[in-house]
Amino acid sequence: MTAQSNTQVLFKEAPGKGWVELKHFEVKTATADLGQIQDGQLLLKNLFLSVDPYMRGRMNVSQKSYTSAFELGKPLQGGGIAQVLESKRPGFEKGDIVSCMINWEQYTVLDSKFQATKLQPVEGVPLSYYLGILGMPGATAYAGLLDIGEPKEGETVFVSGAAGAVGLVVGQLAKIKGCKVVGSAGSDDKVALLKSEFGFDEAFNYKTVESIDKKLSELAPKGVDVYFDNVGGETLDAAINNMNRHGRIIACGMISQYNATPETAYNIKNIIQVVGKEIKIQGFIVSSRMTKDFFARFLKDIPQWIKEGKLKYSENVVEGIENAPSAFINMLKGENTGKQVVKI
Amino acid sequence: MTAQSNTQVLFKEAPGKGWVELKHFEVKTATADLGQIQDGQLLLKNLFLSVDPYMRGRMNVSQKSYTSAFELGKPLQGGGIAQVLESKRPGFEKGDIVSCMINWEQYTVLDSKFQATKLQPVEGVPLSYYLGILGMPGATAYAGLLDIGEPKEGETVFVSGAAGAVGLVVGQLAKIKGCKVVGSAGSDDKVALLKSEFGFDEAFNYKTVESIDKKLSELAPKGVDVYFDNVGGETLDAAINNMNRHGRIIACGMISQYNATPETAYNIKNIIQVVGKEIKIQGFIVSSRMTKDFFARFLKDIPQWIKEGKLKYSENVVEGIENAPSAFINMLKGENTGKQVVKI
Repeated sequence: MTAQSNTQVLFKEAPGKGWVELKHFEVKTATADLGQIQDGQLLLKNLFLSVDPYMRGRMNVSQKSYTSAFELGKPLQGGGIAQVLESKRPGFEKGDIVSCMINWEQYTVLDSKFQATKLQPVEGVPLSYYLGILGMPGATAYAGLLDIGEPKEGETVFVSGAAGAVGLVVGQLAKIKGCKVVGSAGSDDKVALLKSEFGFDEAFNYKTVESIDKKLSELAPKGVDVYFDNVGGETLDAAINNMNRHGRIIACGMISQYNATPETAYNIKNIIQVVGKEIKIQGFIVSSRMTKDFFARFLKDIPQWIKEGKLKYSENVVEGIENAPSAFINMLKGENTGKQVVKI
Repeated sequence: MTAQSNTQVLFKEAPGKGWVELKHFEVKTATADLGQIQDGQLLLKNLFLSVDPYMRGRMNVSQKSYTSAFELGKPLQGGGIAQVLESKRPGFEKGDIVSCMINWEQYTVLDSKFQATKLQPVEGVPLSYYLGILGMPGATAYAGLLDIGEPKEGETVFVSGAAGAVGLVVGQLAKIKGCKVVGSAGSDDKVALLKSEFGFDEAFNYKTVESIDKKLSELAPKGVDVYFDNVGGETLDAAINNMNRHGRIIACGMISQYNATPETAYNIKNIIQVVGKEIKIQGFIVSSRMTKDFFARFLKDIPQWIKEGKLKYSENVVEGIENAPSAFINMLKGENTGKQVVKI
């Protein structure tokens, strides 16, 4: 293969502090010369693309974020699953399935400086799960809840964004640890699913309750011991107010504030309670915790719990690279249940 | 001694959410019958009374705080140094100097259920130091900075309320650990003292700077690694904004907010940065950490460092139990440098 039609999604315009819109992207089909790969490179056919909240931060071109900004005029990047079409990298051969950072495009030449992990697909486990429960979101839930939150049997765990890629796993892990689990999500359908399909003890729709704080105190009458925060804002304030002494807050993400302007941002009122209740708030990024030891535990426990029926998973798969921008926008608006994936 | 004139300070009226005023106290001289002590009790002549920010919380009669509220019509209580006049408690005898919780009064019968610690006064160390650098404020600085903050050589430590009883010790401990130290305080005199007497590298008057955030970024150009928070509010927000990755915030107190009403309270804008910078915020109350092990380390290190001239201390001593209310009010307003003590 040398010349090949290659549809790409480019970063066209920075959204600033507001909502991301379709105009910030450009879908373009180019002809790529893919035949000249160098030593250390891999030629990849991209199969699945991961669409994640943290990518919003990479669209802030002038702002510091914990990941570098996307380059204007270049394809966006994200986690992906791809098949090796040609390899000049030792240990990889044609046909291998890999997990790596890929460009938002159909074909990518992966440079020698970028890591790729060869997957051993398991029968009955969809490949795309390696972007979800067996990938970064699953690792995020596992590291955050178990290593930072340290939930103990009988404690109450609250998770926001509970129907998202991370939240679904957090709630189920907390149940495995013998906790009472309360989740919040943004629609009645999601709330119903959390209770009927994913074993949550309680769940509520934060958009329709009169007061998140009051609802949480009703559903967690003994108080909250561990709060896994995916959303920030008013929900974080409510969690602090309902926290028990020595409570732990895992600050994983604050999606409610990613598109906030200074005028619409929610400022935290209850931080003073952190002192008297001796609360710990620990911000974290999963990549900092991805040691060999961590992966050994993670990749032992999760498949085991899936096999035992203790862990279920849910995906929202959109077809076609050209639909990646709308999938990303919908995910930011909370329209997905479970992991948002694009099948290329 | 049986009948004895005993001046007391009673808790007359709850201040609600506003500033504490003299009208909330009543100074009263009664005749107490002190001759009838029971088994386990100690009759004490109170020598020094500790005046501390946390006591503001005990004046909120209807609100939950981490210590129980003072009783209306009864004397206030606080840490104190006293001399034993009569003992029916094994291990204590007339003339012993003890540290314990005492009532705001001249003479107290300490019930068997209340602890007292016998002190071994050291020549050249004022008794009142056992309420300060060798007492609760010193232990707070030591446990918070060293055990939670874990400052490493070459890091930058920022402490607010730096001229207070805890802050003065925090800054000097950070210097002992080889850190750069920046402090904030509420007057130019305090700022000058921090630099000339207590070894702070930088200090500023938060009341007169144009922007705490900007000033902090000037004085800590490499960012802040450890922030010891005594004040909360705008200073906490500025610290978060100037924090380095993996920064640690010791949430020890938030005195700027203790008298805030919902209208004047400062709400935190920068909490979202906790995620990306993987910041830890740990609330703490020193009494939870006062294990035997802790005291062994604390009472070995602090006197040693004082002897070596690495640790200095400052007190503000007011004479007369009847002046305890104004000493307390002035401390809440930040008019003291160093530990606020009342000599009874």
